[in-house]
Amino acid sequence: MGECPFCQIIQGKARAIIVLQNEDVIAINDINPQAPVHILFIPKRHYENVVDAMEQDGSVVERLFRAAIQYAKSSGLSDRGFRFVINCGRDGGQTVPHLHLHLLGDRQMTWPPG
Amino acid sequence: MGECPFCQIIQGKARAIIVLQNEDVIAINDINPQAPVHILFIPKRHYENVVDAMEQDGSVVERLFRAAIQYAKSSGLSDRGFRFVINCGRDGGQTVPHLHLHLLGDRQMTWPPG
Repeated sequence: MGECPFCQIIQGKARAIIVLQNEDVIAINDINPQAPVHILFIPKRHYENVVDAMEQDGSVVERLFRAAIQYAKSSGLSDRGFRFVINCGRDGGQTVPHLHLHLLGDRQMTWPPG
Repeated sequence: MGECPFCQIIQGKARAIIVLQNEDVIAINDINPQAPVHILFIPKRHYENVVDAMEQDGSVVERLFRAAIQYAKSSGLSDRGFRFVINCGRDGGQTVPHLHLHLLGDRQMTWPPG
């Protein structure tokens, strides 16, 4: 997966602001943030999207959410609220073909969600 | 949880268009859809939000995603792509205090996600 930008970050071959990291998950600031807090929670193992991840290992999604909620609680974001987004495929607007969970907050999120 | 509108649907005391149902999860059409496909995947057990759910039972989120992806695949939506959204609390725009996963698709989703 040498061409995948997230794999390159995980392998230390590309730079990013790493917010949180554990055995399975890396969290980085979105380079084009859509809210004052906009973090991507990414599995270290490459899955093209959420469908592929769930088919291969259902616990991947749970581990992404666990890391994201740990961040939201420790940063105080969970007191005010936040939005989670996962884009899948073309209609979803997925731009990097490596599963990632968006956490957006520190502003009032609006509706519809895109 | 007599006052919770989703618990009332789950208990058969309020009406909704049920798209899918299993032991743990009920899926209904959003009454104010923001895309041609806009379905809510709801745990039958009441959790106020995603933080509470993850603290009480981390597998809840995985089961919501499993049901949603089953729907997306069987309906053909996963071929074109879709967006998942979970709102939490005030800033997230959560309007019903019972955890629910939004599945939106059958149109090009835009950015930012609200």
